[in-house]
Amino acid sequence: MTIRLADLPADVQEEVAATRTIVADLHAELPRWELVVWTAGNVSQRIRCADRIGQDLFVIKPSGVSYDQLSPEAMVVCTLDGKKIDDGTPDRLQPSSDTAAHAYVYEHLDRVGGVVHTHSTYATAWAARGEEVPCVLTMMADEFGGPIPIGPFALIGDDSIGRGIVETLKDSRSRAVLMQNHGPFTIGTDGRDAVKAAVMVEEVARTVHISRQLGELIPIEQSKIDSLFDRYQNVYGQK
Amino acid sequence: MTIRLADLPADVQEEVAATRTIVADLHAELPRWELVVWTAGNVSQRIRCADRIGQDLFVIKPSGVSYDQLSPEAMVVCTLDGKKIDDGTPDRLQPSSDTAAHAYVYEHLDRVGGVVHTHSTYATAWAARGEEVPCVLTMMADEFGGPIPIGPFALIGDDSIGRGIVETLKDSRSRAVLMQNHGPFTIGTDGRDAVKAAVMVEEVARTVHISRQLGELIPIEQSKIDSLFDRYQNVYGQK
Amino acid sequence: MTIRLADLPADVQEEVAATRTIVADLHAELPRWELVVWTAGNVSQRIRCADRIGQDLFVIKPSGVSYDQLSPEAMVVCTLDGKKIDDGTPDRLQPSSDTAAHAYVYEHLDRVGGVVHTHSTYATAWAARGEEVPCVLTMMADEFGGPIPIGPFALIGDDSIGRGIVETLKDSRSRAVLMQNHGPFTIGTDGRDAVKAAVMVEEVARTVHISRQLGELIPIEQSKIDSLFDRYQNVYGQK
Amino acid sequence: MTIRLADLPADVQEEVAATRTIVADLHAELPRWELVVWTAGNVSQRIRCADRIGQDLFVIKPSGVSYDQLSPEAMVVCTLDGKKIDDGTPDRLQPSSDTAAHAYVYEHLDRVGGVVHTHSTYATAWAARGEEVPCVLTMMADEFGGPIPIGPFALIGDDSIGRGIVETLKDSRSRAVLMQNHGPFTIGTDGRDAVKAAVMVEEVARTVHISRQLGELIPIEQSKIDSLFDRYQNVYGQK
Repeated sequence: MTIRLADLPADVQEEVAATRTIVADLHAELPRWELVVWTAGNVSQRIRCADRIGQDLFVIKPSGVSYDQLSPEAMVVCTLDGKKIDDGTPDRLQPSSDTAAHAYVYEHLDRVGGVVHTHSTYATAWAARGEEVPCVLTMMADEFGGPIPIGPFALIGDDSIGRGIVETLKDSRSRAVLMQNHGPFTIGTDGRDAVKAAVMVEEVARTVHISRQLGELIPIEQSKIDSLFDRYQNVYGQK
Repeated sequence: MTIRLADLPADVQEEVAATRTIVADLHAELPRWELVVWTAGNVSQRIRCADRIGQDLFVIKPSGVSYDQLSPEAMVVCTLDGKKIDDGTPDRLQPSSDTAAHAYVYEHLDRVGGVVHTHSTYATAWAARGEEVPCVLTMMADEFGGPIPIGPFALIGDDSIGRGIVETLKDSRSRAVLMQNHGPFTIGTDGRDAVKAAVMVEEVARTVHISRQLGELIPIEQSKIDSLFDRYQNVYGQK
Repeated sequence: MTIRLADLPADVQEEVAATRTIVADLHAELPRWELVVWTAGNVSQRIRCADRIGQDLFVIKPSGVSYDQLSPEAMVVCTLDGKKIDDGTPDRLQPSSDTAAHAYVYEHLDRVGGVVHTHSTYATAWAARGEEVPCVLTMMADEFGGPIPIGPFALIGDDSIGRGIVETLKDSRSRAVLMQNHGPFTIGTDGRDAVKAAVMVEEVARTVHISRQLGELIPIEQSKIDSLFDRYQNVYGQK
Repeated sequence: MTIRLADLPADVQEEVAATRTIVADLHAELPRWELVVWTAGNVSQRIRCADRIGQDLFVIKPSGVSYDQLSPEAMVVCTLDGKKIDDGTPDRLQPSSDTAAHAYVYEHLDRVGGVVHTHSTYATAWAARGEEVPCVLTMMADEFGGPIPIGPFALIGDDSIGRGIVETLKDSRSRAVLMQNHGPFTIGTDGRDAVKAAVMVEEVARTVHISRQLGELIPIEQSKIDSLFDRYQNVYGQK
């Protein structure tokens, strides 16, 4: 049975509205950091409302819409099976064609509050060779705690992309996976954290690519990677 | 005999005016996506008015004019033999030096409603080696349904560029051809669709180039390419 | 004896003022096309006033000034021996440290009306190997009529850079020379034409570099280069 | 004992306020020149007030704050042991996680008035191979007087990064060091000079990288490097 937005408790409706604004704003970061062209790429964020309505929801970009037209009102609200809810707008746009993958990740990794998908150039270039990005930069150790792993080749249309993401990331420190021949998916505690991971995975994919063009990379010892990752997760930024 | 705009039926005159605005606006996408420098590159769109005036027309950029000065009024209206019509402006600018190629494509491929030409960097780099871009990305399979083909070397000045484009694309899924030593031409259902193809061909040319710099690419099986192409043409976006 | 601007005929003073505006505006094109960083790079334009004051003048950028501060008033007026004239401003800025090279070119190549110098990345990369850019693109044949030649290594401080430019370009179709280990200098009929050459030389240096990274380039036959160059010089743009 | 801003002499308080504005403005140069992504990178500038309060201070970016939010008020004032002073703002942000490295440089190299750290792509790419950038461009000879040296691998958290920078640069003409597997640190007479060095080190790292992709670089003789460096330090710009 389709959920109707108007039937939900007032505080959940408010969270839906607030999350639409957040997700619309986060989409502006994708072209800003040159991670997407045309209408490619998408950001979603979970609404943790299972305690009140028996299930979580998430907000995601509509399919095939230009980045200039991504207002909060255009964002689509979905259940964790990837179906859009009835939000009272009769001509509600269809959600992103990657919605099923986002939904699968939220359903199977409870810690995930945000998901981002792009075809950013250097990350996708590693994906087209099926080769993980080795951890040779302190900023990679900080941010990802090791290499960026490769996920399986998977066709769109069922849950195989979602399963590939979850299988690859569930026991990993990395918040990014490079799906083979496809491109990066990133996860985070919320949409903003997943967008940061999308920015950083392209940055490290580019820098390591360029470095390796001219010779051998110097690896960082595992104990030092561990030390950097631990410190960054616990000391960096404002607490 | 030269066609005079003022003699055409009112609805055709209106379509000419609307198409001039569309084509002027689409030119702004070329520098936005960094596909062109200086005055290079051009977009055109067909006006389907053969039912009313016995032939179609198309609107194209004037030759050698800066992207800052491409107002709707500056756009040139041509017949399908590549000659500008008399639109009542005595000092009407000359159309793009690539007008003959656009005209030939419209004349010989009825399904084409828009044509774009650029010298975008990575697409042109494949063209200078005369090497097609292999289909190793799901977004290539989605958008082009296979590799991006190479067209013949052809000199400007007669219909040899147009013929090369038509010969290469007439039986292809690809909406882009890389003319050898020259650069990409793309086609679409209208000008916007051809601009999208120009953006996407540069994106895939860049990503595949960068990927192959560091090793072997993983091919995608033909059956999977077919599946992706079919789905994207029929499911993606808003219907 | 120093020339005083206030002593010159009124029409020459007007040309000086107009040229200062042109040269200031042209400097904005250098960062726009990403040819320069910080305060690097410079544009100059000749004032053809020998018929009236016995010698030509030229206007050039001041040395070490930020691109944000390049107003017409900041531009420096020089004689063809590279000395600034007395323009009535007591604290007149020093001209670009490359002024002697510009002056030498104007003095020895009468057809030149504009000179540009940058350290644009790909053009400078060819210069650091001392290797000319081969003519494998139709846009190179159009614009430069053949390869982009290398000039000698030359130290700043006397006329050796100017001599290197003139020796390399005086019998060449190319409007660009890559000075070894240094970077490109371009010439034109006026400042704008030289800026266009600076934009185009970087564009072709980049595209040919990227093409050659993955394999052999396809040369264009000399007769076809000749045909393209001739046509572009005589047919392209508005007459 | 913590220093209180309100207890300092009026002229030192004024210098603190002025330096906060300078350092905030200089941070805008880092994204402008594409040296940083997200919240990475930092600029600091020394306040020479040891004659009045017995020690110098410096102003630096807060940790993990977006470049859009770097107002003068957000900047953090520190003593040369890397501790923030009490500036009367109870919820004062924590200084950059690289503050200890900046502090160590100011403490041990009195000539240094500004420090910048980025992970700019090409400079970091050389650092990941532990390979100095050879001096093959006249602009490198001008600006750095020789190659860009590599500093040791060092973990964040104690003074080992600061020591690595000081050991590498104390007897060098270069104002930039590439810390292995990490990225560039640059120094200057003030913050702006260090930012210029950060811009220029990325520019030369990129150009030399690209040049070497296609073949052997032509070295510049040491005597000519000396001549260029001497001239640039003494003649370039406005005196």
